[in-house]
Amino acid sequence: MRLTSFSDFGLRTLLMLGSGEHDTWSSAELANKLNVSRDHLIKVVQRLAVGGYVQTTRGAGGGVKLNRRPAEIRLGEVLEWLDGNSPLTECFRDDGGQCLLAGFCALRSKLDRARKMFYTELNTWTLADCINPALEEFAALSLQSL
Amino acid sequence: MRLTSFSDFGLRTLLMLGSGEHDTWSSAELANKLNVSRDHLIKVVQRLAVGGYVQTTRGAGGGVKLNRRPAEIRLGEVLEWLDGNSPLTECFRDDGGQCLLAGFCALRSKLDRARKMFYTELNTWTLADCINPALEEFAALSLQSL
Repeated sequence: MRLTSFSDFGLRTLLMLGSGEHDTWSSAELANKLNVSRDHLIKVVQRLAVGGYVQTTRGAGGGVKLNRRPAEIRLGEVLEWLDGNSPLTECFRDDGGQCLLAGFCALRSKLDRARKMFYTELNTWTLADCINPALEEFAALSLQSL
Repeated sequence: MRLTSFSDFGLRTLLMLGSGEHDTWSSAELANKLNVSRDHLIKVVQRLAVGGYVQTTRGAGGGVKLNRRPAEIRLGEVLEWLDGNSPLTECFRDDGGQCLLAGFCALRSKLDRARKMFYTELNTWTLADCINPALEEFAALSLQSL
């Protein structure tokens, strides 16, 4: 198992947004800070926006900011939301996938329970539990270097 | 999060090996049955062999067979073994990865705990819990069709 790059950068984006003393980041600032392409970052931000985790505004002075307080963002919930479009295995796809064992595999239900335990464990923490002075310092530095 | 193709096919390989009434499968039979390239399957089988889950023998009449009874193969343990070479995120890499937040990210330890809960939940079952008549029938059919 591994996190998709999409979900991974989703979490990192939230870490940045929750750490800065400034509210709003441009996508260029975030992409630069996280060392990821702006295109990839924008897709991640769009997914977070649809889930209600961030707000985006267009135009001069616009950008991305958190739509909830860090203490209100449970890590398992937001990761499950980010993971929404990437099935755990072939047989978790909406169309049922291509695995020939799908009709009689007893593994799927067990993987699904384990997947839920993964998110449940992460739900014991919020984004606020991940914010610390070093992260805030790193987030603040980004603005000066851009 | 998602299973890597490597781990996914590792589990499917074990399902086949545990289901057939015959002991030994050739890699061609397994690859054909699981609809995966023989090269990919051989890498998976090699990993399972190093972990002591399967035995391989060369030559005529050789092939792959389980090295333990299905009831002795815990699903979380074997998946963790298969996952061994694919880190959950960048920062789980042996070399520490490239993430700029690595030095002060409070997320890694939480992801690690959640990952362990995933395997722990799967360890409540063994391969034997995944074997059923339909799977055995599917495994038996493969020999006739090859």
